[in-house]
Formats: sequence, C-alpha cells, structure tokens
Amino acid sequence: MSAAPPQGRVIWFTGLSGAGKSTLAGALYAELQRRGERVELLDGDAVRENLSRGLGFSREDRDTNVRRIAFVAGLLARHGVTVLVSAISPYRGTRDAVLAELPSSLEVFVDAPLDVVTQRDVKGLYLRALAGEIEHFTGVSDPYEAPIRPALHLRTDLRSVDACLTELLTLLEVRDVAHA
Amino acid sequence: MSAAPPQGRVIWFTGLSGAGKSTLAGALYAELQRRGERVELLDGDAVRENLSRGLGFSREDRDTNVRRIAFVAGLLARHGVTVLVSAISPYRGTRDAVLAELPSSLEVFVDAPLDVVTQRDVKGLYLRALAGEIEHFTGVSDPYEAPIRPALHLRTDLRSVDACLTELLTLLEVRDVAHA
Repeated sequence: MSAAPPQGRVIWFTGLSGAGKSTLAGALYAELQRRGERVELLDGDAVRENLSRGLGFSREDRDTNVRRIAFVAGLLARHGVTVLVSAISPYRGTRDAVLAELPSSLEVFVDAPLDVVTQRDVKGLYLRALAGEIEHFTGVSDPYEAPIRPALHLRTDLRSVDACLTELLTLLEVRDVAHA
Repeated sequence: MSAAPPQGRVIWFTGLSGAGKSTLAGALYAELQRRGERVELLDGDAVRENLSRGLGFSREDRDTNVRRIAFVAGLLARHGVTVLVSAISPYRGTRDAVLAELPSSLEVFVDAPLDVVTQRDVKGLYLRALAGEIEHFTGVSDPYEAPIRPALHLRTDLRSVDACLTELLTLLEVRDVAHA
C-alpha cells in the first residue's frame, strides 16, 4: 500500500458580489503557485457554467451549486491539491455543512459594507438590482448570512489587497504548523 | 516558477449497463492504487448523484452529465491524478468531443452483446426496460453508439476480468513509454 497523499487545504472565500473574493483568491493562487504548491481556483461563476448551467438563484439552486463546488473541491483536496473556492455562498447553514465535511477547510469572510460594494459595482449589477431589475440579488433582494466565526474576516474596504494576502498567508502557515 | 505537475491520464470506460465498466474500472483502480499511483474513480451513477441530480436521460441531459464528468476529470488530471471514468456515455460525438479536450485520455470500449448483458441484468433493469417500463434505457429504448477506434476494445463475455485488467495495464505501459 502506498501512503495516502497529504490532504490538501480548502480555503473557502464567501462574501457579497464585489467584496473582493476573486481578487483575493486570485492573489493567493498566484502566490501559492509561485511557491510551487499544487493549487486550484474554483470560481463560483466558472463552476456554475460548467457544473450548474440551468440552475437559478433560488435558495435551493444556490445550495445545490455550493454543494457541487464542495464535491469537486473535496476530490481535488483528497489528492493533495490546495483548493481556493470563490463563491458568494450566501447561506450559513449550507456553508457550515459543506465545510464540516471537508477536512482542512477554512472559511474566509471577504467583507465590505453594502454601500462600498454598491459604489464599486464591479459588474454593474448593483445599480440594476437596486432598481429592482434583478431578482435574487444577494445583499439587495436576497439575503447574505455572514459567517459567525470565520477563520479569517477581511474588511476589504479598510485593508489593501497586499495586507489581506499577508493575513491569508499567515493563517495558512499557522494552520500548517498546527497540523504538522 | 515551479514545474507543472505531470499530466494525469484519463481512462474513459464506455459501454452498456452491465457490460462490466465498473468492475474493470474498479479492478484497475485497486491495482494502480496498490502501485502507489494517485488515482480517482468517477463512477457515472455517483457523479450523477453529486453533480447532476435533476438531470434526466434525454440526449441533452446525458450529454450534460458526460461534460460535467469530463470537467471534473480534467481538473484532477491537471494535478497529476489518473482518473478512471465509468459511464455509459452513449453518444459517440459527445465522447469524442470531451476526450479530444482531455490530454492523455484513452477510450476503453467495454463490450458484451445485448443478450449477454440482458441475461446478466446486474441491476434488474433490462427485464423492466424490455417490458417497456423504462424510457430511455440504453441499448433497449435508447441508442448506444459504439466507439469506432477505441484505444482498447474489451469483450467481457469472452475474456475474464483478470485478462481484461492485464490488457488495460499493458495499454497504460505502452502509452506511458510512448509519452515518456
């Protein structure tokens, strides 16, 4: 029998659209790759396209999408890949359930106040959502349930990307030492 | 920059229900794991449960399911995992398309005549399908388009599991040498 490969970590970035999840996950991805780690980025939008086309944004459909991302993250982590998930994943109970089933998983709350993300409006969606043109838009016409005790809470309106990245790397180092 | 991990292989087992796909994929999985390889088994039924619940057995839904399996297989293979897919995947064009996008992929046709798999009737489904109780049952009320030039064609009614496994291992060795 061969030894099992070391379990990969799953870092789950949750937060409102425009809070900075993809930016931070992308920065961490680049840094871990630079260090020679095996790392994969599962972006909520890309996964939706590949695994969940046809699903909408009802609570049930969002939860199904989150569970599918978690299933794929678990497969990759099982083979030693560090998986960065960037997904709004608005429902606390569902996040808690899937993270509990993923060994070595960490929840990162990427947080900025609604007025800040509305002003950023990266994808031009908040204006339309506030005008009532988008149903089920998280933070406007759909709930976002913030984590209660995330491994890390990053206020992206108060900290730079570099500062947030440093916190992420410190978190990983501390966890790796704790699990060594 | 770190070197990219070696590309994992994708071995795609296609064939009728009861032809022996899962048996052979399972035997190969056990042997590769015994040899210390990183290997994952994606079984069509299990993947359907985790990634495609809600999809039916229309051509479109089957193709969507096959594409999702291929997406996950590609992610794992990218990180050096050998992925064994066991899925009826009845449509030739769809198989060809997804396999063309997967580097180092091999198609294995697990084949036994319809009267043999009907007699085996592993899951008790052929009897019901032949009685007209199951719509869209591959080989009875739905088409199966056999591969034209698979990497390996295994007649499970004529060869033992051990003999088929030996052929599979030989195929992998030849391919590995060819790609070394």
